[in-house]
Amino acid sequence: MGMGSETRVGIIGVGCTKFGVRDDATIQEIAFEAVREALQDAGVTREDIQLSVVGTAGTRSYELMPAVPINEYCGFAGKGPIRVEAACATGSAAVYTAYTSIRAGIADLAVAIGFEKMNEVDTPTSLAVGGRSGSYLWEFHQYGTTFPGYYAMLAAAHMARYGTTDKQMAMVAVKNHRNAAKNPKAQFRKEITLEKAVGSRYVAYPLRLFDCSPISDGAAAAVLASEEKIKELGIDNVVWIEGVGYSSDTANMPKRADYAGLKASVEASQMAYRMAGIDDPLKQIDVAALHDCFTIAEIMAYEDLGFCRKGEGGKFIEEGESDFGGKLPVNTFGGLKAKGHPLGATGVAMIYEIVKQLREEAGDLQAELKNYKGLTHNIGGTGHFGWVYILGV
Amino acid sequence: MGMGSETRVGIIGVGCTKFGVRDDATIQEIAFEAVREALQDAGVTREDIQLSVVGTAGTRSYELMPAVPINEYCGFAGKGPIRVEAACATGSAAVYTAYTSIRAGIADLAVAIGFEKMNEVDTPTSLAVGGRSGSYLWEFHQYGTTFPGYYAMLAAAHMARYGTTDKQMAMVAVKNHRNAAKNPKAQFRKEITLEKAVGSRYVAYPLRLFDCSPISDGAAAAVLASEEKIKELGIDNVVWIEGVGYSSDTANMPKRADYAGLKASVEASQMAYRMAGIDDPLKQIDVAALHDCFTIAEIMAYEDLGFCRKGEGGKFIEEGESDFGGKLPVNTFGGLKAKGHPLGATGVAMIYEIVKQLREEAGDLQAELKNYKGLTHNIGGTGHFGWVYILGV
Repeated sequence: MGMGSETRVGIIGVGCTKFGVRDDATIQEIAFEAVREALQDAGVTREDIQLSVVGTAGTRSYELMPAVPINEYCGFAGKGPIRVEAACATGSAAVYTAYTSIRAGIADLAVAIGFEKMNEVDTPTSLAVGGRSGSYLWEFHQYGTTFPGYYAMLAAAHMARYGTTDKQMAMVAVKNHRNAAKNPKAQFRKEITLEKAVGSRYVAYPLRLFDCSPISDGAAAAVLASEEKIKELGIDNVVWIEGVGYSSDTANMPKRADYAGLKASVEASQMAYRMAGIDDPLKQIDVAALHDCFTIAEIMAYEDLGFCRKGEGGKFIEEGESDFGGKLPVNTFGGLKAKGHPLGATGVAMIYEIVKQLREEAGDLQAELKNYKGLTHNIGGTGHFGWVYILGV
Repeated sequence: MGMGSETRVGIIGVGCTKFGVRDDATIQEIAFEAVREALQDAGVTREDIQLSVVGTAGTRSYELMPAVPINEYCGFAGKGPIRVEAACATGSAAVYTAYTSIRAGIADLAVAIGFEKMNEVDTPTSLAVGGRSGSYLWEFHQYGTTFPGYYAMLAAAHMARYGTTDKQMAMVAVKNHRNAAKNPKAQFRKEITLEKAVGSRYVAYPLRLFDCSPISDGAAAAVLASEEKIKELGIDNVVWIEGVGYSSDTANMPKRADYAGLKASVEASQMAYRMAGIDDPLKQIDVAALHDCFTIAEIMAYEDLGFCRKGEGGKFIEEGESDFGGKLPVNTFGGLKAKGHPLGATGVAMIYEIVKQLREEAGDLQAELKNYKGLTHNIGGTGHFGWVYILGV
């Protein structure tokens, strides 16, 4: 493929709302809250934007096709011809569409907006149906499997095969809550103890309440620009998109060869590593946002992305390797587990957090930077979609 | 913008199902029907594909997030990380995402799949809510406006301002039914008379039954490749994407300055013309697919795309200029009006039909080619989204 001659694409501004229950604002208002911050951060105006990509998983909001009202409210009427969806990886897909449009020379200044108001729908179960993203007629109707049920199967497999413990899973929750406590944008700003986590009730065995990310409302936005445009604007605190990787997988869990990992994570990360020239993520990447919709998902991601060997994810968290001062700090912002997981917003919000890290603007949550490279890993469904970005300055 | 240095992208294979009521097949099956034809047409296998983009407006199918099962059934598990939506322009947005991915050098062989099973949902009204794509809380709840109601307002404005007649609108239906009668993929393969059309009952004054496109099921697919890949494969009957244009517009009809045309059509076509070097569409373009969801929409599109002056669209159809032998044959395949309009499929199906024309494979419906250039024009909602492609050989 003819890579190298194409336009380089940089992220010049990011914004993110407070995550949580956002009864105070409509979907238009939360999107604008993120967009305004991103535009101000980039130092550009809405008139400068040539393309707006809206990402929402579509959790049965009153607006069935929300891209038009969202774009209008944000000042992008005329510039927002597309909405994207990839279940819980929707935000990463939105950034991709803005990214390829610039890299292809179609636009040179674009915004990706991700949002979700999950508290607007009837029941968490109806969310679970969507978020699950599997084969509806077969698995949902026949077995009633919902989202925690799917990840519970993965956790059970991981525990059985590798001896991963509920205490190790709980340590992911404890770390991410501790980080979220210092993140003003987080839904849960309270530390939890290991005792509280391992003592919490089961949601779907072996996953307990504190193994699960919450039902969240929120939005995030990123302003992307071509290298030429960045020079023209005289912007110097740019975070470059150095690699992107994607994959997807079967809709039918029984067809998966392995429940103790996600093939989409492996494939997406390898594609992104290849593009960005990453041979050893532990040595080359300073900070990562991994998709911890459930604690077991963060543990599996350590392995699937090559931060440790397969089966050693439990040990990786237990030995503090994913904490500050460890080999590769993960979810320094609190993760989906404690910052929150408004589906369509999540992938863009990961970009927001890693950009803040790479610009050394993460305050009390700043990781130590050696190579000034970060990673985001965003999963849709139960590994139905996989997206990885490598960012660098 | 740095255009010119980027990878050229060609369409090397197209497929389209029969449109109509497709109770005989699931969404997976109709998608595969189109994909199989496109892959065979391209002479590549599903293993060769690096990216699959699925477009569906999402008309409340039993599969809430259908990209995963669709991709799996078509053999693209691992390659389908994204679904796109742009209401009735969804198909064009799917082609765009595949196109920019190749032009950006991320993939060099991609497929865009558009589909919809509209007959699967409860009532046409629930479709109308989606297809309308406006500001739900305000316009739908307050006034109960549905899709034919919106276009009826546009038709009334066009008639009042320019003297466009119901007979002229009916002539669009007569032409498109006459063409569809010769198209084996069409939903309605029956000619209609002008008397029948102007005598049919009102759906929403001034639009009659024969001014409206039907409720359709169907799918279409297009295989896109980089110039490098095309050379490697030794393919010579390539149709190149020479220009793309997009726009979008306000969600609130009362905010529109003008009801007698669609700003999104004007802006999208001008962007595409600029990119493809089209100064005079009548002289440079041989055949066009225009978005005739209602007959008035085809008449407005003649004007908005510069085939005639504003207000002279009625005369353009009346004088046969959009028919075979006229200045620019439009909807030679029967249009949305008579071939059918399965929302997510439509934009890809337009590409299918124009590719067949430019390869001189349109049989009884072949237009005369001088410049070997064609155009597709695809609208989402009531001009909420606008997409235009210029294709050429």
